[in-house]
Amino acid sequence: MSAVKLRTAVMGATGYAGFELAKLLLRHPKLATPLFLSRGGEAAGHSLESHYPEIGGAESYPQEPFSWELLKPRGIDVLFLATPHELSRELVPEALARGVRIVDLSGAWRLKQDANRAVYGFEDQDAAKAAELDRTAVYGLPELHRAEIRDAKLVANPGCYATSVIVALAPLVRSGLVDRERGVVCDCKSGVSGAGKKPTAKTHFVEVADNFSAYSVFGHRHTGEILEQAGLDAGELIFTPHLLPIPRGILSTIYIGLKKPATPSEIEAVFSEFYDGAQWVRIYGHGKLPQIQYSLRTNYCDVGFQLAPDGKRVIVVSCLDNLMKGAAGQALQNLNVMFGWSEKEGL
Amino acid sequence: MSAVKLRTAVMGATGYAGFELAKLLLRHPKLATPLFLSRGGEAAGHSLESHYPEIGGAESYPQEPFSWELLKPRGIDVLFLATPHELSRELVPEALARGVRIVDLSGAWRLKQDANRAVYGFEDQDAAKAAELDRTAVYGLPELHRAEIRDAKLVANPGCYATSVIVALAPLVRSGLVDRERGVVCDCKSGVSGAGKKPTAKTHFVEVADNFSAYSVFGHRHTGEILEQAGLDAGELIFTPHLLPIPRGILSTIYIGLKKPATPSEIEAVFSEFYDGAQWVRIYGHGKLPQIQYSLRTNYCDVGFQLAPDGKRVIVVSCLDNLMKGAAGQALQNLNVMFGWSEKEGL
Amino acid sequence: MSAVKLRTAVMGATGYAGFELAKLLLRHPKLATPLFLSRGGEAAGHSLESHYPEIGGAESYPQEPFSWELLKPRGIDVLFLATPHELSRELVPEALARGVRIVDLSGAWRLKQDANRAVYGFEDQDAAKAAELDRTAVYGLPELHRAEIRDAKLVANPGCYATSVIVALAPLVRSGLVDRERGVVCDCKSGVSGAGKKPTAKTHFVEVADNFSAYSVFGHRHTGEILEQAGLDAGELIFTPHLLPIPRGILSTIYIGLKKPATPSEIEAVFSEFYDGAQWVRIYGHGKLPQIQYSLRTNYCDVGFQLAPDGKRVIVVSCLDNLMKGAAGQALQNLNVMFGWSEKEGL
Amino acid sequence: MSAVKLRTAVMGATGYAGFELAKLLLRHPKLATPLFLSRGGEAAGHSLESHYPEIGGAESYPQEPFSWELLKPRGIDVLFLATPHELSRELVPEALARGVRIVDLSGAWRLKQDANRAVYGFEDQDAAKAAELDRTAVYGLPELHRAEIRDAKLVANPGCYATSVIVALAPLVRSGLVDRERGVVCDCKSGVSGAGKKPTAKTHFVEVADNFSAYSVFGHRHTGEILEQAGLDAGELIFTPHLLPIPRGILSTIYIGLKKPATPSEIEAVFSEFYDGAQWVRIYGHGKLPQIQYSLRTNYCDVGFQLAPDGKRVIVVSCLDNLMKGAAGQALQNLNVMFGWSEKEGL
Repeated sequence: MSAVKLRTAVMGATGYAGFELAKLLLRHPKLATPLFLSRGGEAAGHSLESHYPEIGGAESYPQEPFSWELLKPRGIDVLFLATPHELSRELVPEALARGVRIVDLSGAWRLKQDANRAVYGFEDQDAAKAAELDRTAVYGLPELHRAEIRDAKLVANPGCYATSVIVALAPLVRSGLVDRERGVVCDCKSGVSGAGKKPTAKTHFVEVADNFSAYSVFGHRHTGEILEQAGLDAGELIFTPHLLPIPRGILSTIYIGLKKPATPSEIEAVFSEFYDGAQWVRIYGHGKLPQIQYSLRTNYCDVGFQLAPDGKRVIVVSCLDNLMKGAAGQALQNLNVMFGWSEKEGL
Repeated sequence: MSAVKLRTAVMGATGYAGFELAKLLLRHPKLATPLFLSRGGEAAGHSLESHYPEIGGAESYPQEPFSWELLKPRGIDVLFLATPHELSRELVPEALARGVRIVDLSGAWRLKQDANRAVYGFEDQDAAKAAELDRTAVYGLPELHRAEIRDAKLVANPGCYATSVIVALAPLVRSGLVDRERGVVCDCKSGVSGAGKKPTAKTHFVEVADNFSAYSVFGHRHTGEILEQAGLDAGELIFTPHLLPIPRGILSTIYIGLKKPATPSEIEAVFSEFYDGAQWVRIYGHGKLPQIQYSLRTNYCDVGFQLAPDGKRVIVVSCLDNLMKGAAGQALQNLNVMFGWSEKEGL
Repeated sequence: MSAVKLRTAVMGATGYAGFELAKLLLRHPKLATPLFLSRGGEAAGHSLESHYPEIGGAESYPQEPFSWELLKPRGIDVLFLATPHELSRELVPEALARGVRIVDLSGAWRLKQDANRAVYGFEDQDAAKAAELDRTAVYGLPELHRAEIRDAKLVANPGCYATSVIVALAPLVRSGLVDRERGVVCDCKSGVSGAGKKPTAKTHFVEVADNFSAYSVFGHRHTGEILEQAGLDAGELIFTPHLLPIPRGILSTIYIGLKKPATPSEIEAVFSEFYDGAQWVRIYGHGKLPQIQYSLRTNYCDVGFQLAPDGKRVIVVSCLDNLMKGAAGQALQNLNVMFGWSEKEGL
Repeated sequence: MSAVKLRTAVMGATGYAGFELAKLLLRHPKLATPLFLSRGGEAAGHSLESHYPEIGGAESYPQEPFSWELLKPRGIDVLFLATPHELSRELVPEALARGVRIVDLSGAWRLKQDANRAVYGFEDQDAAKAAELDRTAVYGLPELHRAEIRDAKLVANPGCYATSVIVALAPLVRSGLVDRERGVVCDCKSGVSGAGKKPTAKTHFVEVADNFSAYSVFGHRHTGEILEQAGLDAGELIFTPHLLPIPRGILSTIYIGLKKPATPSEIEAVFSEFYDGAQWVRIYGHGKLPQIQYSLRTNYCDVGFQLAPDGKRVIVVSCLDNLMKGAAGQALQNLNVMFGWSEKEGL
C-alpha cells in the first residue's frame, strides 16, 4: 500500500534558495511533485529547466502563474514562499485564511519586536491582521522551537546568517555564562549565493573573485532575528557580514566574554545538553573547528569552539550551507517537523 | 627642459578595458593627464574614483560629458574609444574630419571584407564615408602592421581573442607550412573581464565559479578578424571561445596540420624570424608552453608550441592578458608606435 | 524480510576518488558498511574521519591494514581498488585467485594493446598471468560494455578524461560518419581533483588559481584508452589535457570532420540510438551545450553538439564530474551492473 | 652623470615574498641588479626563471650558493633575508659584524619582549649577542619607526597580519580613546600566498577553493608583534587568522570599544594626524570601507572605519597585499627610508 503523498507548492523556485528547495522537494519520498508557481513578469511560464538545464530529463517543470484558484483544486497542503518579503507580507494573510499552511523563506514574518521590524518598512493592507500574524508566526529554527513548529500555520524560516549565529550563541547565552556587558562580536562571512540570483555589480564575477569585503556594517537586517532569538539586547552584540569569493557557505566567528573562567568541558556540556537529540547540529570537540567545506551541500550546522588560555573568553566557530541549513534545507526540516516525520527525511 | 606632453582623451574609461587604459595613460611619462569623457546616461559626471575607489587619492578623475566642442580647446591629439562599436561607428568619421587621431578599442573598424563585417550589422549614416574608412583604417597589431600604424589616422585595436590567435598563427600560415585543407582548430579560453563590466546572468559569480563552458560556437565575431589577418578562408579555421572562472587572461590552444613533417627547429625559426625585434611577443622553446599566469598584468603575448612525434601536426599555445595585450596595453603600444616612441614606454 | 547485503571493501579510500566512492558505498541501500583497507605507511590505521572530518558522527570509519587473511572471514564479495596502478597490478592476480571480484579505479588493466600499455611500464611478477588478465579484464564503461561487465571478474574502471571523450566520440566513429583521416581533436579541461590529493607544486592553490595551462601534450596516458575504445588509430586523434582552476569537473571540446555534410537530426539520431536506455548519459539537443556545473556531483555524462553551417564538421561538447562518472560514480554504476541492480541505485 | 647604484643581495628569492622582492629590486631605479643567493639544497644553482618562467627574457637570474666571501667583493651594501627565521637568527649576527645592513623579512628579530619571543623557541649560538640585537633591531614599520629605520643596521620587516592590524590599531590606542579592558577583537583573513610556497595539504587547491576556515586560534605568532607595537597587554587583544580562497591580500576587521562615545570626525582626525604625510597609508572616510581588491599589487595599507550608532564602538577595516605592504613592498619602503629616498621610489 502506498501512502497518500503530501501536496506542496513553491512560489519563487527559480531563485537560488527556491531552486534548492525545489530539488529537495522533488526527491522527498513523502511528497507529490510540487506545484511551481510564479508571479507574473518574466519568470511566469518559464520552466525550471529553462533556468537550470541540469534539472532536465523527461520533465521540464513548468511554472504556473500564481492564482488563489489554483491552490484549492490541487489540494495544496503547504505553500513555500521563496519570494521577496513584500510579497510574502501580502500573500500570507490570505493563504492562511484559505487554510494553507505556510513556510516562508523571506524575512517577512521572523521578527517579534516592532523596533526590529522597522528596518523592513512593511506596509500592510490590514495592519491588525498583520500584527496578529507577527505574534503567532513561529520562528522556524527547529533546534529552538520544535514544539511550536509542529502545530504552526505560519513558519518563518530563519535567515542564513541568523541561523549560523543563533545556533552557536543561544546555548551559551541561556546557560548564563556570557558576560553580556562586554558584548558579543559576530564576524560572519558568506558565499555569494546569499546575495541572490539577480545580477548586480556586487555579484559580478570580476568584482568578487580575488576579493573580500565587509558590508552592511552596523546595519544588516538579520541583526534583529539574532538578538530576539539569542536573547540579547541591541547594545550587546555586533554582527558584521562579509562577502566570500565562493558560491555558497557561511562561517561565523563569534567572540564571547564569559562572566568567570570556564573549562572546555563546561562549554562542551552546554552545547551537548542543548543539542541532545538534534540531528542537524554537529558539535566538534574543543579546539576542533569546522570549516565551510564540511557542511556544504548538507543540512548541518557545524559548531566548534576554543577557549582562551585564561578561560575568560571563548571563540565559537559555526558553519553551514546558506542554501541548505540557511534556507531550503531548513525549510524542509521544518516541513518534516510539521508533519511528524524524521527530521532527516529527504535531506 | 621638460618636453610638451601629448594630450589624449578616453571615452568609456569606466569599463574594464577603458579603466585599464586610463591607468596606463595616467602613468605614461610622455602624456598629460587624459581627458575622460562619457556619453550622457548614468556614467556622465561620475568620476573614475566612484567606479574604482582604489584609484583615489588627491584626484577623483571626473568624466566630462562628451561634446565635439571640448576636444579642440583642450588640444586633444588622440582620442581613445572604449565604447560600443555602434558608437565608434558614429563618432569616428567626425573625429577624423576634425583632425583628431583615433585608437578605437571596439570592433567597429577592424574588418576589411564585407562578408565578415555583416555580422555586426552596422548602420552607417554616410555609407560612402564609412566604406572609405573601412579601407583606410589600420588593424592595430603592431607585430603585423607596424609601418602603417605609424601614420594611421584611425587605428582599429584588435580583439582580445583575435590577438591571441593571430600572433600564434600568422607566422606559420605565411611560412607556407600549414596544411590549410585539413583545417586549423583554435580552442580558446578567456577570463570573465572579456565579457564586460555590465552585470548579466552570464557574469554572475555563482554561474561562473566552479564552472566552465563553451559559447558562440561557430559564431563569434572575432572569427572575421582572425581569418583576415591570418590569411585563411572561412572553411579553413574553427574558433571556439570558452569562459574560464578567472577574472582575466586568455589561453588559446591551436591545432595545425603541416603539409610535410617539420622539426622543432624549423618551427622555432619561423617564429624567431617573424618576431625578430618584437618587444611584446615572447617565444618559448619547443615543449615549453606558456600559462596564463605568466602574462597577467603584462603586455606580452606568450607563444609556445609542441610538435607531434611524427612532426605532421603542431600545437601552438598562446597566452595574454585580455585587458593588456588584448585591449588597453595594445592600445598604448599602438600609441607608442604612432608617435615613434619605444614600444615599451609606459608599459 | 531484509535482504542480505553485499559486502565490499575499498582500498585507498583516503584519496579523492576513493573517498567519493566510500561515501557512495556507505549510503547504497544494498550494501553493508564497507571494509576500509590501507597498505602500510602513514594512512594505515588512520580513519576516514581523520582525513575528512565532515564524514564524522557516531562513526569514524577506521582503515584496517590490508591483508589477504582479512577478506575471506569478512565475506568480501567485491574489492574496489583506488590505488596506484603498480599496486593494482600486484594485487589483482591474487585477489582473483581468491575468488574476489574487482573493480579497479587505476589504469592498471584498462588497455588491450601492448603498444598502449607500454607507457605505464608495468613490471609484472607473473607475465603470463598478467597477459591473460589484460585480455579478460573488461573496460568498465557500461554504455559500451554492459553485457561483459555483468559477468566480469575484473572491471577496469575508465579514466576520467577517457570517459568524457569516449562517450562523446564512440557513437560517431561507429556510425561511419567520421572522416578519420582529417583527425579528431579533443581539447579537454579538468578540475584539480583529477591530479590527486598529494600536495605538489602543480596543485598549490597559488599556482592554480587565476591560471590555466595545457599539460602532457602529445603524451597523456589516457590516450590509449580513448583510441582503443573509440576505435581510432594513433595518428587519427589528438588529446590535449588542460588544468582548470576549479576543484572538480571535466569539459571536453571535440572537433570532428565528417565524410559528407550531415544534418543536426542525423547526428542527434546517432546519439539517441546509441544511448537508447542509457540512464547516465544525457544528450542535449543541437546547439544546446552542456556546462560543467550541470553534471557536478551527479553520475551523468552530458553530451551536446553543434554542426558547422556547412554541415561538414561537428563540435561535440561533453561534461562530467571527474570524481563521479569519471571515477567513483562509474565504479558504483559498474557494481550495479555486475549484480543486476538498477544502474541508478545509490547514485 | 649617472649615480653609482646601490648593491643589494637577496637570500631566498624563490619563495613568494622573496620573488616579489626580487621583481621590485630589479626595477628600482637606484639599485644595481641584485645578487641572488641560496643556501645549499635544491634551490642552489636554480635560476629564478626556473621557478618563475614569466621573469625570463635575456636573463635567467641564477642564484649563487651563499657564502660570506661573496658579499665583500661584490660590494653588497644591504642584504635582504627572505629565509626561515632560524636561518635569519643564525646569519644576522655575522652579517652585521661584516658591516652589511640587513632587512630581514622573517620573524627572527621583530620581538622586544622575552615572553613574546618564546613562541619561536630560538636557539642562539651567542645568546648575549642575540639579546643585544633583539634590543637594537628596529621594527620596520616606517609609519611608526621612520626615524630609527633611517640609521638601523638591522631592520625587522613586520609580519603581514601584524602590519594590517598595527596600522589600523596603533593610532587609536595611542590616542587614549580605546577601552582596553573591554578588549580588542581582530578578525583577520588572508590569501594563501601568506602560507608560503611549499606545497602542503593546507595549500592544496582542492582544500582551499570553495572553503574558508579559522586557524591558529589563540596561538598565532604575529600576536606578540601586534601587542608590542600597538601597545596593548596580552589579555587586551584577540587575534584570529582565517584562510581566504584567494592568492593574495589581507582584510582585518577590528572591533574596538571606546572609553566614551566618539564622533566620526574625532576618529577621522586621529587617523589623519597620525598618518599625516604617510605615503603608503590611505584613510577612507567614515563608512567607506576598503576591500582587498583596492590594495592588491600596491604597497598601500588601506584603512576605513565605521562607528556604532551610539558612538561607543568602532569597527576598523584595513586591507593590504600580504606580499607587498605585508612583506616585499614594505621591505623596499624600508630600504628607501634607510637611504633617504622617496618612500614611493620603485613602488
